[in-house]
Amino acid sequence: MTWRATVLTLFPDMFPGPLGVSLAGKALASGLWSLEARDIRDSATDRHRSVDDTPAGGGPGMVLRADVLAVAIDAADANRDRPHLLMSPRGRPLTQSLVAELAAGPGPLIVCGRFEGVDQRVIEARNLTEVSIGDYVLSGGEIAAMVLVDACVRLLPGVMGKQASGEDESFSEGLLEYPQYTRPQEFEGRGIPEILISGDHAKVAAWRKAEAEALTRARRPDLWASRPGQKGTKNKTDG
Amino acid sequence: MTWRATVLTLFPDMFPGPLGVSLAGKALASGLWSLEARDIRDSATDRHRSVDDTPAGGGPGMVLRADVLAVAIDAADANRDRPHLLMSPRGRPLTQSLVAELAAGPGPLIVCGRFEGVDQRVIEARNLTEVSIGDYVLSGGEIAAMVLVDACVRLLPGVMGKQASGEDESFSEGLLEYPQYTRPQEFEGRGIPEILISGDHAKVAAWRKAEAEALTRARRPDLWASRPGQKGTKNKTDG
Repeated sequence: MTWRATVLTLFPDMFPGPLGVSLAGKALASGLWSLEARDIRDSATDRHRSVDDTPAGGGPGMVLRADVLAVAIDAADANRDRPHLLMSPRGRPLTQSLVAELAAGPGPLIVCGRFEGVDQRVIEARNLTEVSIGDYVLSGGEIAAMVLVDACVRLLPGVMGKQASGEDESFSEGLLEYPQYTRPQEFEGRGIPEILISGDHAKVAAWRKAEAEALTRARRPDLWASRPGQKGTKNKTDG
Repeated sequence: MTWRATVLTLFPDMFPGPLGVSLAGKALASGLWSLEARDIRDSATDRHRSVDDTPAGGGPGMVLRADVLAVAIDAADANRDRPHLLMSPRGRPLTQSLVAELAAGPGPLIVCGRFEGVDQRVIEARNLTEVSIGDYVLSGGEIAAMVLVDACVRLLPGVMGKQASGEDESFSEGLLEYPQYTRPQEFEGRGIPEILISGDHAKVAAWRKAEAEALTRARRPDLWASRPGQKGTKNKTDG
């Protein structure tokens, strides 16, 4: 079956947006995956179509209602046969291994929060998995959902030109990617490292591995310490 | 002066996209910030308008050329009077404190990479700051740029309805946000915690703080250990 993303949002017009262009867009057009954006507001029951209300206990902003969102989720996926996610800065951090796991499945239903948040009771009652794309706050979950979907789609069979392109890049072995160079041979007095134009494939591979390791150690000691194969690695226990 | 984001991309049609809707879109329409998407391809010099070439040393994919990108950067911002960023999974992780720093400045120039990467020499020659939105790989830098811009824009003066809304949320004190509730009082047999409807503001504040701390400890021991005020905190040394 085709990988399928269903997005519940107050702004369905945002979709496909950037997901309709370039790599993801071409794959969408050729049926390698499918996308459905559903308007949460369609599940509102009062005549004002209200979806949010003020926070219990006071405070600024508005909170997405549990009852309205529950109806929207149930209408979109009554069978619950795939992951139900809520994009939220409180969630499990998105990593490339979680991306690979989601890409290997049927495709998620993704709830995009808005305002100050979502009523906690629907998160619990519908067992939503909160996922965070990073330690910062967005105005809503929509762009976060696009990040998650784009990352998954490029891993789907047939989407990238060469399968290898997905295997030899940042995080594929718990390392950041080595530096890349291309023509022209000289740019503002800067050359391409000799070894890369030597034609010696083994030496090129060794150089790239050493560069990736040095870069990861220098920039991301946290990644370096938890890369696969390390004792007590986070990646191991996740998988 | 108005906060201004300039995006260099091979897909200028992706913009404003989701940034043209909702909170960021309303603020854009009312002139609280401005956005310019520039096509890197306009800086190509050959008749095929080529912007990329095969990686030196071999390997799959294509690499964005240093010479073409340098021309695009110089044309967009010859004076170099603001941050020049490259969205890249190898970059400095985006955090809410980096977002706040960028929001307080004139607004960044953002290069969106594509393909396997960007020629290392232009990153060095133009002193681009690589920024990563998370430990996963996207098909390009465009959606990552949208994440960065959306996170900044909501912090700009006048964008959020109440200033307080930005101060009382995830990461504002190094903590994840406490649970939120709203009407109806009962949802599928689940009530709102008594304390939130007690009307006792001091108790509500204490409950929220305790919930935020418990949630952060349980879900993100890494954040808990590095929150502001802790000894040896990462946030402190960053700032």
